[in-house]
Amino acid sequence: MKVVVALDSFKGSVDSRSAGAAVRRGVLAVQPTADVRVFEMADGGEGTLSAILSARGGEEIAVETVDSLHRPVTATYGVLVADGRRIAVIEAARTIGLAQLESVDADIPPRASSYGLGVQFRHALQSGPDQVLIGLGGTASTDGGTGFLSALGLRLVDDEGSAPRPGTNPLWRFAGIESTSMPDVAHVEVCVLSDVTNPLLGPLGAAAVFGPQKGATPGQIATLELRMAGWARSLERLSGRAVASVPGAGAAGGIGAALVALGARLEPGFDRVAALVGLPEAVAGADLVFTGEGRLDAQTGMGKGPVGVARIAREAGALVIALAGHVERGPDLPALFTAVVPIHSRPRTLDEAMDPATTLAELEGTAAELARLTAAALDK
Amino acid sequence: MKVVVALDSFKGSVDSRSAGAAVRRGVLAVQPTADVRVFEMADGGEGTLSAILSARGGEEIAVETVDSLHRPVTATYGVLVADGRRIAVIEAARTIGLAQLESVDADIPPRASSYGLGVQFRHALQSGPDQVLIGLGGTASTDGGTGFLSALGLRLVDDEGSAPRPGTNPLWRFAGIESTSMPDVAHVEVCVLSDVTNPLLGPLGAAAVFGPQKGATPGQIATLELRMAGWARSLERLSGRAVASVPGAGAAGGIGAALVALGARLEPGFDRVAALVGLPEAVAGADLVFTGEGRLDAQTGMGKGPVGVARIAREAGALVIALAGHVERGPDLPALFTAVVPIHSRPRTLDEAMDPATTLAELEGTAAELARLTAAALDK
Repeated sequence: MKVVVALDSFKGSVDSRSAGAAVRRGVLAVQPTADVRVFEMADGGEGTLSAILSARGGEEIAVETVDSLHRPVTATYGVLVADGRRIAVIEAARTIGLAQLESVDADIPPRASSYGLGVQFRHALQSGPDQVLIGLGGTASTDGGTGFLSALGLRLVDDEGSAPRPGTNPLWRFAGIESTSMPDVAHVEVCVLSDVTNPLLGPLGAAAVFGPQKGATPGQIATLELRMAGWARSLERLSGRAVASVPGAGAAGGIGAALVALGARLEPGFDRVAALVGLPEAVAGADLVFTGEGRLDAQTGMGKGPVGVARIAREAGALVIALAGHVERGPDLPALFTAVVPIHSRPRTLDEAMDPATTLAELEGTAAELARLTAAALDK
Repeated sequence: MKVVVALDSFKGSVDSRSAGAAVRRGVLAVQPTADVRVFEMADGGEGTLSAILSARGGEEIAVETVDSLHRPVTATYGVLVADGRRIAVIEAARTIGLAQLESVDADIPPRASSYGLGVQFRHALQSGPDQVLIGLGGTASTDGGTGFLSALGLRLVDDEGSAPRPGTNPLWRFAGIESTSMPDVAHVEVCVLSDVTNPLLGPLGAAAVFGPQKGATPGQIATLELRMAGWARSLERLSGRAVASVPGAGAAGGIGAALVALGARLEPGFDRVAALVGLPEAVAGADLVFTGEGRLDAQTGMGKGPVGVARIAREAGALVIALAGHVERGPDLPALFTAVVPIHSRPRTLDEAMDPATTLAELEGTAAELARLTAAALDK
């Protein structure tokens, strides 16, 4: 039996890699001769670099840069060769990740900047790649990419005519751009990996939608929105590109817009990562595919992870089982899954259910039962 | 796809019949043309009469009798024809059931009697059956069947030389048997359905093992044990049959012993009910069998319900899925099941999990997912 395992993380409990390893153990416990391939899943956010490097190999390069609060941090990016092209892979969450903050509150929005990501990007450019992939997602800043472009040399001025101070969000008091041209990255292809389709501004924009989870109060969101509009106008004028309305410009607190202004291409994160790790090829020869994530409900159909795996699996004619800690049964669950199966083997509180050891044991146990059932049915 | 559904009750939540109906709904939701047959499961205890009548048809006959505390009660038994023979089916729990008591405490053991069951048995004998099946299990009395045999005419005397008073447990002050012969039931075949194998006396006997769940204190258990030993001697002397040591004599507070003394045959409850309802024939043609109960663990291997269904299913070559609210995963789970799958789709407290509506919805949902998976795998 050929089995492919590609689970998303179970948020707050276990990551994609260990979830996949647990399912693999379960399958092998009942089908010791099964060919089980595990893929990490990522959509441009946390885990993207690990997913790509674990599947493709490559080099990890450490860069001394700063995090979203301008504290020194060593962050790695990857370099690999695919189809003869040298590709640098940057995961924004590794540098300016929200998860790196000790606390997230109203202190953060005026301070958090994407400057450190720009430092890392500059380093990657200097390594001479044919292409740079930047995974957005899980970042702490809502600065429209002002910090990111500052690190690439773009000069900004604030309300008092000064350059923004390090350790502040350059958007917070943004007044205008002093540079007369955009930083030049035309010699390299830049791709943004993100499954966020939000525009930069408005009620579905970066500040309104993602601000709250980054600590912004309603008043701060209004401030950010106002400055973001001015920043978008300046950026569009300087770059000659439509920026604010592009779907995905609102990704990562607006870093998407800054990258669009640089000429970067936005790509669906999940699809690009899946292609890069070779998921479609692996699934094409599989009898059974396991996917899943912490919670599966009507919203799952909007996302990319398990539904993306299921789409690939169904096209290839494989059975696809989605595992989850919490399933909202009902007609709104995506019909792409052959079966959606919850993993908890007994009544538990949410806290008990989130315990990583519990999640892993239940993933392993559930996978074993379903592998046994599927193998028996396939044998009939 | 041919599907057989035979679930045990989910104790404290839903009975076998409604559990089976929920699984049927789930299967039909995804496989509308499936041939789904539902069987109720029973082992001689509660649900036995319903299981047999729902599968075989037959007549329900109401009898005015008394419950274990000598309160008037209308209890029904069934009469059906199988292989040309007229069979009466009595479920002891319907007359002298523990579940009919408002509270179970130390007031009960000195009072609870099997007299009302004897009244019903006498009525069934008068209907002229070829065979009487008595399902034991779920009874309130620990009287060794003294009440039962009293109702059939056996005369007992207590410590003061009097007949036991109605509304008391005749065993409590049992001194001897006044009759010179056993009640005569030789014209009819009597079968006891029970999966209990306990003897009448000793640490594995009726008083020691089942007394506590019927309200008996340690002191009361000692009293019951002492009187039970005298009763067994009297019964063996009068009937000329070994009684106390027969496996199953301890069933239903010792009613098993009284029936053995009458010449009844003890039969494994689950197997006999399964055969009577036609479970083996139905399973023989099935692709998939659903069984299950509230909790599945190492103890499940000792019982008869789901393991009995699984044994029949595996012999017939059908896939068998066990559903449960609580699964103890591990090597001790019976290996007869193709897959053991818990039904709860999210973290829940035990109280929430026991809610009947929740159990039914989850059974339906889980069955749907697994039926879809199995059908897809069988189609490949």
